[in-house]
Amino acid sequence: MDAEIIAVGSEMLTESRIDTNSLYLTGQLNRLGVEVVYKCVVGDDRNRLAQTIAQAMSRSGLVILSGGLGPTEDDLTREAVAQALGRTLNFDDAIAALLEERFARIKRKMAEVNKRQAMVVDGAEVLSNDRGTAPGQWVEAHGSVAILLPGPPHELKSMFERECLPRLEKRVPRMAIRTAFLRITGMPESDLDALISPVYKKYENPVTTILAADGDLQVHLRARCATDAEAERLLAEVTGPIEELLGDRLYSRAGEPLEVVVGNLLRERHATVAVAESCTGGMLGARFTLTPGSSDYFIGGFITYSNQLKQKLLGVRAETLEAFGAVSRETALEMAAGARQAAGSDYAIAITGVAGPGGGTEEKPVGMVWVAIADESGTIALSRRYLGDRQRIRVFTTQMALDMLRRRLAKLE
Amino acid sequence: MDAEIIAVGSEMLTESRIDTNSLYLTGQLNRLGVEVVYKCVVGDDRNRLAQTIAQAMSRSGLVILSGGLGPTEDDLTREAVAQALGRTLNFDDAIAALLEERFARIKRKMAEVNKRQAMVVDGAEVLSNDRGTAPGQWVEAHGSVAILLPGPPHELKSMFERECLPRLEKRVPRMAIRTAFLRITGMPESDLDALISPVYKKYENPVTTILAADGDLQVHLRARCATDAEAERLLAEVTGPIEELLGDRLYSRAGEPLEVVVGNLLRERHATVAVAESCTGGMLGARFTLTPGSSDYFIGGFITYSNQLKQKLLGVRAETLEAFGAVSRETALEMAAGARQAAGSDYAIAITGVAGPGGGTEEKPVGMVWVAIADESGTIALSRRYLGDRQRIRVFTTQMALDMLRRRLAKLE
Repeated sequence: MDAEIIAVGSEMLTESRIDTNSLYLTGQLNRLGVEVVYKCVVGDDRNRLAQTIAQAMSRSGLVILSGGLGPTEDDLTREAVAQALGRTLNFDDAIAALLEERFARIKRKMAEVNKRQAMVVDGAEVLSNDRGTAPGQWVEAHGSVAILLPGPPHELKSMFERECLPRLEKRVPRMAIRTAFLRITGMPESDLDALISPVYKKYENPVTTILAADGDLQVHLRARCATDAEAERLLAEVTGPIEELLGDRLYSRAGEPLEVVVGNLLRERHATVAVAESCTGGMLGARFTLTPGSSDYFIGGFITYSNQLKQKLLGVRAETLEAFGAVSRETALEMAAGARQAAGSDYAIAITGVAGPGGGTEEKPVGMVWVAIADESGTIALSRRYLGDRQRIRVFTTQMALDMLRRRLAKLE
Repeated sequence: MDAEIIAVGSEMLTESRIDTNSLYLTGQLNRLGVEVVYKCVVGDDRNRLAQTIAQAMSRSGLVILSGGLGPTEDDLTREAVAQALGRTLNFDDAIAALLEERFARIKRKMAEVNKRQAMVVDGAEVLSNDRGTAPGQWVEAHGSVAILLPGPPHELKSMFERECLPRLEKRVPRMAIRTAFLRITGMPESDLDALISPVYKKYENPVTTILAADGDLQVHLRARCATDAEAERLLAEVTGPIEELLGDRLYSRAGEPLEVVVGNLLRERHATVAVAESCTGGMLGARFTLTPGSSDYFIGGFITYSNQLKQKLLGVRAETLEAFGAVSRETALEMAAGARQAAGSDYAIAITGVAGPGGGTEEKPVGMVWVAIADESGTIALSRRYLGDRQRIRVFTTQMALDMLRRRLAKLE
C-alpha cells in the first residue's frame, strides 16, 4: 500500500516552519511496510486543498491529513474532504456534547465557533482526541482511506497510536523488513553508481537508495518479504556482490560515521592519535571529539594556522617553508612528525591546504590539500584537489584525512 | 505572483530528511513579494512527478523544482518536466564540454552517465552551476515559469542568487523592501521575545521574524512600502526602540555571525588570538577559520583533550588538575595563560567542560563549562551550564567563548 501525507495550514508555508508530523508519520508507516510516495503542504485555500485530496485518494490507498481541524474559519480540512468526495458534513451531537463538557471542566464557556469541530464528513468514523479538542476522522472511499488528524504533534501522535495503528494493522498485509546501510568514501557519487548499479538495478526489492554528502556516500537497501528469513536471504543476495565491488572503499556495513570507525580501530589497537591542522583550523579534532568516549584514543593536538606556529609548535623548518611553501608534501610531513613527537601520540595526522576563496596560484590552486600521517614506521603524505567553497573543501579534507588513517590502521595502502 | 516548490527524490521521503531548500526558497521569494501557496516532496517516479509539475504550472506563475538533476538513472527531473510540457530533451554540447573540462581539471575521467546532465528541455535557458556539475534550467510555458535547481543546498543557493533572482526581479512588480537583520546572543529566545514583542507586535509592516539556533538569535524585520524612503523610515521607527532594549546583547546590526564580529574587532586592534580547547576539541578554531582572511588575527592554538597535554603543551600544573579537576576555574585560567604564552598571541581563549553524555557528577554536571580569556592585563573566567546533547553543549560553549572575547575587546564587561 502507498501513502501520501498532506499538511494543512498557511503557517506551515513560512520560512521557519518544518512539517515534523510527516517525519513521525513516515517512520510509523515504514514500520508497517507502507511507503510514503508523496507529501505536501497546502495553505488555507479550500479549492486547492480539495483538489489535492481528490488526487491523492485517486492514486494512493492511504492519505493522511494533519492540521486544519481547529475551530476557526481558516480550518478547512473537514470542508475540503467533503468537497473532494462530494459528501455532506453532518453535525454530530455526541462530539458537541463532549466539547461542551470539556469546556465546563476547565470552567470556561465554549465559544460558538467551536461547534465547527463537531462537523463530520458523511460516513466517517470519529477518532477521539485525548489531548485536545479537535476530534479526528477516518473516511473510506473508492478503496482508499483518508485520515484526518489534528496538527499539534502531541495530539496527532496520541491519536495515531491509539486510533489509527490498530485499524491500519488490519488493512496492511504484514511484511518482514530488513535493511542494510553501507558507507563508502573516496569516490564520487557517479562513479559509485556506475560501479554498483549493474547489481542493484536487477532488483526492485530490495529498494536501493544512494545518498551523498560532504565526501561521504551512503547506500541504503531495504528488503520487504513475507518472512524474516526470506528478507535476510534477499538482502544478502544483493549486498554480497555490492560489498565485493566496493572493496576497501566500504568503510562501514552498519552505518557508523567514519570518525567512529577510525576511533574503533584505534581503540582495538590501544593506540592514540593527535592532529596538526592548518586550513581546517580544528575541524578534524572537532570531528574526533564528536563521539563520546573519544578520549580513549584522541589526545589532542595543534592548530597551526600561521607559519610561525608551524615552526614554533611542530618544529617545521624555516627552510622547508621557504623552499616548498606551507601547502606542500614537505611541510605536511614535518607537521605530522612534529605533532607526533610534541604530543607523544602513536599516530599523528597533519593537514595543510588552500581553502580559498583567495590565496590560490597556478601551481597551488584553491582546493589543493596535503594530508600526512606519522607513526612509528615513518610518515606518508597524499595530495588531493577538491572543488567548491571554503567549507566544502575543508569538510572533504577531514574526510580524506580520516580515510587515510583508516587505511593505515587496517593496513590497506 | 504565486509560487509552488517541488522537492524531488525518494530519499527526501524518509523519516529523517527535511527539505531545507524549500525554507530557504520561501524566504527568498517572500522578500520578493511572492507567496508560496503549495510545496511538496515527490519520490523518484517519473509519471507522478510529471503530473505534479503539470498541475503546479497550470495554477501558479512560478514553480521551483529542487533535486533530481544528478547523473544517475533515478535523477528524473529533466525527463519529467519535458513530459509535463510535451517537449523534447536536447543534448547540449556546450554543457557536455564544460562537464568534460571540469573533470579534466581534477584529472578524472568523466563517467558516461554524467552526459545525462547535458540534456536540456527544449526551449529552456541553462543556469550555470559554480558549485557542482549539474546545470539548472529556466523553462517558460503558458505564462508560467519552471526553474530546475540542483538539490545540494550550497549549489541551489548560489544558482538561485546568481541566476534566478535577477530574472525574477524583472517579472515581479517592484515594491521597495528594506530589511534589518539583528543578531543577539546570551539570552533565551523566549526572553528575547518577551522583551521586544511589545514593540514589534504594534506593526504588521515590517514583518518581524525571530530565529533561534545554537545559542544565537536573529531578528529579521522586513518593511515593504511604495518608496525606498518610506520603507527606510518605517524600518527605523521599529528597529530604533528594539536596539535600545537589546543593549549590548545586540552584537550585529548587519547580520554577520559572531566570529566575524569578533574577528573585525581583533583586526581593528591589530591583535591576534589563540585557542586552547578541551571539550570542544577544535570547534572554536574551526569557527574562527570559517572566515576567509581570518589569518589576519587567528594564529592557531592547542587541542588539549587529555590532561597530559594540558600539562605538557599549556603548562597547567599537576597540582591544579589534582586539586580542582580539569573542569574548573583554576584549570581554565592556567590553560588560557599557558596558551597565550606558548602561542605568543595577544589574546587566548580556553575552554574546558563536561560535554557528556557520561562523566557528569553532582558537583560538575553534564553541560557545565568554564571559559577563560587571557590578555596582557590578566585572565578572567566564567562558568555556564548548558542543557541538551553533546554537540549542542559544545556549540553553545563556542558561542559563549566568542561573546566573552567580544565583550573584552569592546570593553563591555
